[in-house]
Amino acid sequence: MTVYNPPLADMHAALNDVAGLPAIATLPGCESADEETVAAILEEAAKFATGVLAPLNPIGDKTPAKLENGAVRTSPGFKEAYRGFVDGGWNALPFDPERGGQGLPAAVSLAVSEMWNAAGLGFALCPLLTSGAVDAIEAHGTEAQKSLYLPKMISGEWTGTMNLTEPQAGSDVGALRTRAVPDGDAWRITGQKIYITFGDHDYTDNIIHLVLARTPGAPAGTRGISMFIVPKFLVNEDGSLGARNDVRTVSLEHKLGIHGSPTAVLSYGDEGGAIGYMLGREHRGMENMFTMMNGARLNVGLQGIAVSDRAYQQALAFARTRVQGKPIGVKDDAPHPIIEHPDVRRMLLQIKSTTEAARGLAYYAAGQTDFARHLNDDVARAEAQLRLDLMIPLVKAWSTDIAVENCSLAVQIHGGMGFIEETGVAQHYRDVRILPIYEGTNGIQALDLLGRKLGRDKGKAARDFIAEMQTLDRVLASLPGDDLATIRTGLGHGLKTLSEATETILGQFAVDPVVAVAGAVPYLTLFAATVGAWTLATQAIAASRRLAEREGDPRFDTAKLITARFFVEQILPKAISGASAITAGRTVAGLDPDLL
Amino acid sequence: MTVYNPPLADMHAALNDVAGLPAIATLPGCESADEETVAAILEEAAKFATGVLAPLNPIGDKTPAKLENGAVRTSPGFKEAYRGFVDGGWNALPFDPERGGQGLPAAVSLAVSEMWNAAGLGFALCPLLTSGAVDAIEAHGTEAQKSLYLPKMISGEWTGTMNLTEPQAGSDVGALRTRAVPDGDAWRITGQKIYITFGDHDYTDNIIHLVLARTPGAPAGTRGISMFIVPKFLVNEDGSLGARNDVRTVSLEHKLGIHGSPTAVLSYGDEGGAIGYMLGREHRGMENMFTMMNGARLNVGLQGIAVSDRAYQQALAFARTRVQGKPIGVKDDAPHPIIEHPDVRRMLLQIKSTTEAARGLAYYAAGQTDFARHLNDDVARAEAQLRLDLMIPLVKAWSTDIAVENCSLAVQIHGGMGFIEETGVAQHYRDVRILPIYEGTNGIQALDLLGRKLGRDKGKAARDFIAEMQTLDRVLASLPGDDLATIRTGLGHGLKTLSEATETILGQFAVDPVVAVAGAVPYLTLFAATVGAWTLATQAIAASRRLAEREGDPRFDTAKLITARFFVEQILPKAISGASAITAGRTVAGLDPDLL
Repeated sequence: MTVYNPPLADMHAALNDVAGLPAIATLPGCESADEETVAAILEEAAKFATGVLAPLNPIGDKTPAKLENGAVRTSPGFKEAYRGFVDGGWNALPFDPERGGQGLPAAVSLAVSEMWNAAGLGFALCPLLTSGAVDAIEAHGTEAQKSLYLPKMISGEWTGTMNLTEPQAGSDVGALRTRAVPDGDAWRITGQKIYITFGDHDYTDNIIHLVLARTPGAPAGTRGISMFIVPKFLVNEDGSLGARNDVRTVSLEHKLGIHGSPTAVLSYGDEGGAIGYMLGREHRGMENMFTMMNGARLNVGLQGIAVSDRAYQQALAFARTRVQGKPIGVKDDAPHPIIEHPDVRRMLLQIKSTTEAARGLAYYAAGQTDFARHLNDDVARAEAQLRLDLMIPLVKAWSTDIAVENCSLAVQIHGGMGFIEETGVAQHYRDVRILPIYEGTNGIQALDLLGRKLGRDKGKAARDFIAEMQTLDRVLASLPGDDLATIRTGLGHGLKTLSEATETILGQFAVDPVVAVAGAVPYLTLFAATVGAWTLATQAIAASRRLAEREGDPRFDTAKLITARFFVEQILPKAISGASAITAGRTVAGLDPDLL
Repeated sequence: MTVYNPPLADMHAALNDVAGLPAIATLPGCESADEETVAAILEEAAKFATGVLAPLNPIGDKTPAKLENGAVRTSPGFKEAYRGFVDGGWNALPFDPERGGQGLPAAVSLAVSEMWNAAGLGFALCPLLTSGAVDAIEAHGTEAQKSLYLPKMISGEWTGTMNLTEPQAGSDVGALRTRAVPDGDAWRITGQKIYITFGDHDYTDNIIHLVLARTPGAPAGTRGISMFIVPKFLVNEDGSLGARNDVRTVSLEHKLGIHGSPTAVLSYGDEGGAIGYMLGREHRGMENMFTMMNGARLNVGLQGIAVSDRAYQQALAFARTRVQGKPIGVKDDAPHPIIEHPDVRRMLLQIKSTTEAARGLAYYAAGQTDFARHLNDDVARAEAQLRLDLMIPLVKAWSTDIAVENCSLAVQIHGGMGFIEETGVAQHYRDVRILPIYEGTNGIQALDLLGRKLGRDKGKAARDFIAEMQTLDRVLASLPGDDLATIRTGLGHGLKTLSEATETILGQFAVDPVVAVAGAVPYLTLFAATVGAWTLATQAIAASRRLAEREGDPRFDTAKLITARFFVEQILPKAISGASAITAGRTVAGLDPDLL
């Protein structure tokens, strides 16, 4: 039940054929990411994921972390696994070598993270949060803050958290009320924060909380928010631990899923104010947030891909062994596994094709991160950053939307057994449901895509990308075979619809933004599915070339062609049909809420 | 959190404008179903549903039924609620007055059942199963069996179960191994049955199990299956209870949802064989099954509608009160509930419109049940039966598919709070996931639609219905207003696509059934969504007439127009896009399973 086989071949295909790893490996600072090294890292990570994390995943589900006498005890085995994770150097993978990191390209680090998230979504959340905190301190901290906190957070000796949400301030971060008042060089923090992932645990000696709060006289809304470093234990100048800070774990949430990840309510300042240190400039807390945002949202999208893939593997294994019924057209009386039923194959192909399309999309975005960081040319770097910014809401929202649907399909393939908790697949259906919500709901991603990513350059970045994708048409036209011809037609239809929808929604946004916004989610889905189709087409072209040249594994490459074809035949058309929702935004926009 | 307001106005609209209740009330045996009586019954049911069942629903979820010392203790309050249900005469509603039933038309009874299922899905399963057992005994029992069992099962003094599934025999009922050997006038039953809903409980003195088993020398597969009445306690000729029968509750399943409903593993014959009485003829057990099938599948579809509606109400209440963020276009700094965000309204309209479309579809099918039973004319009765048979797989599969999606959306509308179990909406997301699985998976419904319902008359019943739906075009064309014009265009597109897809899939089925079957689910979705659109259009026409004549509640009728319009703009196009999947069945059909 706990089996997980990391899809290494598919990861390599996405890295090489979509993310551009061969080019990334030539960039300054990325030289170590040669094919052999990357393969070795992925293989080692796969061992840890399958050997240590995957078996813990159902244990975390059945035995959630507990709050006992004010301290959080994590699920059985989690603490030891975390120690192994840190000892193996896995926490340091993507970070600056000057602070103890290993400086791996973002694309490769993403592939490794996919394995952590697939093997144990609950477990993987702790390093994910630490990573975000590291990024924020690295970008905005003083040198003293960096040298005090970063080495231990990068190694994993300490973990990090992000404290945004309060009961009245969820998506609307600007509504937060936690206060910070000056106290010498430091600040005193008072307030209650909720939904704090790994807000407390027994992994490490210390936890570095990043807390959003308001300073005295700060403007209302997001413009008055500052960010503070609030360690669970104060840290002396020599790095040793001092007194316990005034932060208390009030409770842990009883959640639908990700039970292995303690979600804490934290109270700051019950005894006079927790000591915090301002990170970056006053009132610029939201800028710090945005620093972490791309990484965090990319990683949440990745979680969707990871859990999708794990659910797929479980459904596939079940479909290959469960004998039930005689498939249509079969004459003999031999036992037949349900994978021989066409509709079971259809469901499996839906999970497989959407997962691979989303993987292509996410790995492509991660590759743009590397180009945006390491290209020599300023203009090219800026272009990669624009492309990345455009991709982030697509990755976050679409990968998590398909993940929910895919985990539901994986349950369906199991029939009655899927509904029995012991089977294990229901855990994925429960776990995955948080993904379209946290780190900015998918509705907010669509607003980000429309309002910020399209809005800021009036659609130029989107148009440029669409035009670039359209150039694949010539390549597809030049290659033989029915599969590529079908892919070409389907992708062409998707790109044409996307191009028209982009102009439509931009036009609406200028004239009547409420109408435009009502179509933002269907627009995001159309955009993401089309880019997904493009990444599958890119991989199908590579596969077709390998097949022609008798290189590689012909089964893998044949499957790539079929998967891409299935996607444009059965998945992309649904996204294309959303164009009607974009043009019909007025029905929603004009609706009197009292009529609901 | 436990609030449920039965949608009585919408139920009346679906009964009157779609199911044909005014015509049904004129049929022999249905005279009592006049408007006033029906309204009174629905109001009384609403009181029981909201007052008694709705508050129990989260209790059942948090405190599942338990197996203690071999006996099942149901969730706190469930036994008392069942007693109130029986004392109120609710169990007897749809049954033959000659056996103590109240002879209510199927359509009205369905509306009442919707309330039970919405208020407490787990609770409602017990009467649902009893109802199926009553139908089977009524249709196939001897007069002695009927008079011995039916009065107490109809009153609810005893409950009924259905024992089909065995570990190796799920969808493939023909693979079952439970044996029955003759023993005087009775039979001795030996075997293990799983997934037995309310297979044991503490509600009543007795439980009447209907058990599928094989007699000695029976042919393999479904042709060798017979059905047996196996009471938990043997029943003496005078109706008093005799000895405990040889059936034992082995365990209860630990399920993803519907925790209030005990799902039992039952072992028959550990001590020599449980005593059973053959129901109907030897080897004709599957015929008995089919007798119950239409009713059971209609009811499972109804469960989807019921839970969808409950989740909608919860999401709507949350969206009206949760203040978060400033909606686009708003200038003031006043607090704004999230329902003012267009995307929240879009999600609410998606749940509302699909729920109402599915309600129209299900109530229409229930109305056909009444026509098929009570019309005077043999030909007309047979036609209604054909129409009903065609509708059953649509109701079962589509209503439960949209229910899963809708409960997921209801969680999404709640944001982070949706993922916290205490909020209550996550229960619906878990509960609802069984619906596309039990009573024939939705994949099997699609096979039934294609192989049996279209196959048996080469599509005639489907074509007749499509042609009938197309006549609405003239009515829509004759009425004013932009909403009806949009609905007309959308419905017309759906019907044209459905008509073409019907010919395509019938053609494939004749030539290459494997290819046809690969497209069966998208075909079912297209068919059901189109019928759903037709029922919404029918209701929109009625609403538009009431608005023109200044009758009724203008808010309800305005909402009907908008809901139907939204459905054809945003929901129907997705189903229509499935036509591409139907024509592309070969990709799935020809796929080598080893490539997955």
